[in-house]
Amino acid sequence: MQTYNYHFTTSLHDIDAAGVLFFAHLYRHAHDAYEAFMSDIGFSLDKVIRENILLPLIHSEADFLQPIRHGDRICIRLQIKKIGNSSFSVIYHFTGNQDQQLASALTTHVYLDRNDHESKTLPDSLRDELSKYLAAE
Amino acid sequence: MQTYNYHFTTSLHDIDAAGVLFFAHLYRHAHDAYEAFMSDIGFSLDKVIRENILLPLIHSEADFLQPIRHGDRICIRLQIKKIGNSSFSVIYHFTGNQDQQLASALTTHVYLDRNDHESKTLPDSLRDELSKYLAAE
Amino acid sequence: MQTYNYHFTTSLHDIDAAGVLFFAHLYRHAHDAYEAFMSDIGFSLDKVIRENILLPLIHSEADFLQPIRHGDRICIRLQIKKIGNSSFSVIYHFTGNQDQQLASALTTHVYLDRNDHESKTLPDSLRDELSKYLAAE
Amino acid sequence: MQTYNYHFTTSLHDIDAAGVLFFAHLYRHAHDAYEAFMSDIGFSLDKVIRENILLPLIHSEADFLQPIRHGDRICIRLQIKKIGNSSFSVIYHFTGNQDQQLASALTTHVYLDRNDHESKTLPDSLRDELSKYLAAE
Repeated sequence: MQTYNYHFTTSLHDIDAAGVLFFAHLYRHAHDAYEAFMSDIGFSLDKVIRENILLPLIHSEADFLQPIRHGDRICIRLQIKKIGNSSFSVIYHFTGNQDQQLASALTTHVYLDRNDHESKTLPDSLRDELSKYLAAE
Repeated sequence: MQTYNYHFTTSLHDIDAAGVLFFAHLYRHAHDAYEAFMSDIGFSLDKVIRENILLPLIHSEADFLQPIRHGDRICIRLQIKKIGNSSFSVIYHFTGNQDQQLASALTTHVYLDRNDHESKTLPDSLRDELSKYLAAE
Repeated sequence: MQTYNYHFTTSLHDIDAAGVLFFAHLYRHAHDAYEAFMSDIGFSLDKVIRENILLPLIHSEADFLQPIRHGDRICIRLQIKKIGNSSFSVIYHFTGNQDQQLASALTTHVYLDRNDHESKTLPDSLRDELSKYLAAE
Repeated sequence: MQTYNYHFTTSLHDIDAAGVLFFAHLYRHAHDAYEAFMSDIGFSLDKVIRENILLPLIHSEADFLQPIRHGDRICIRLQIKKIGNSSFSVIYHFTGNQDQQLASALTTHVYLDRNDHESKTLPDSLRDELSKYLAAE
């Protein structure tokens, strides 16, 4: 059971008029972690898209536990929650400098062929890589 | 039971490298609808923030049913899902030109005092306004 | 000499950690005004892109005169600055509620064929429409 | 004469409906490089803002030379262009994997006191640090 770690520091434009990370930007950072992860396991999204495969999100959700402020150094711990026949879910735990829980998010992706827009069985190579990061129940 | 309608057209920068609306931007548009709604019922967020009241999101989620593309004219139908003692949830139904369901989202907000960061009972004036838009079970 | 007017209200996420409109978002709003303008004169960008025509930006600039804050109602007055053989420039004047000058921006676009990436002479139909909005020297 | 180097890879959401980096996002990346640079020389923006100092942008401009696509690894080479009494300009050269020039940008910042919104003489400590990165004429 592995975890993929992704680090970033919140920037001036991440913060909104209320002085905290704008919630939609948390999803943007989660997706940046997901892109880095997919590239790391050999499925960089730009290459995947050029091969006419799409992995659109069909669901996402997030819980915001503590305010995230400008200049905060954040670690996202990424794991795979579930692998279905043609879909998989990714979970993201956002922690701060003191390892305190700040937020969590989940995204569910379905494997589609661009031409017929039908969902396809996940290829074994992707399933195998994702399985290494499967979270314990 | 009222519904608040918010309209927008997807722009060049809403669309990502996969050719569809980037999922985090759906949340941005939902929040723009929420801001317009709050202003409409007399609680414009800039005024609320100046009065040292915060309404941070503690949860959000979305389901993506159909791809949304560049130039699509979208209607968000906004309703209130639930009103608690110090929190409330907003639901957003995204529909296209042919009234087809494209996506739905939900955000949950908690009423906080900026000074002590404690949750407070929703003021009656806000509760009354939100109640008018309460969705049928 | 016509002017195209575009209106928007700054939102929670437009504002950054310094309490003012993040400068890159001014360009985003300018581009939204440009998209609305192009659609209005019969060249909506989604259609243009489907016809394998590209109008990439080759230059942009902006001057920021006054801070723009959360909830400000902004008017963008759009005009055409210059029409060349294969390019044109758009200027944007941002004004506030009291008609005070807040910022200005300029974008220069070149007319390209997507297939060979060569610049092309602007079609007369586009040139004619743009000419109606040409700013006085 | 030093140069500050900042690296990033373009993400799914950086790319727009025309298949290239949306121009306003180039400014966002330039600003991220600027924030990393300022932090590196001891003036992290979150700290600066907490000390009631503002460094608002009064001008920005950019030239876009080559299309930037999804997954491109970009290096921003940052230098200081000019240091005035109360302002300074930063230049950014965007280069790709083969060291090819992709874009350049410039931002001009003025040193303000938050309380009276008057421009102030740059403190010597900041001037000294910026001077180390002054570009050759």
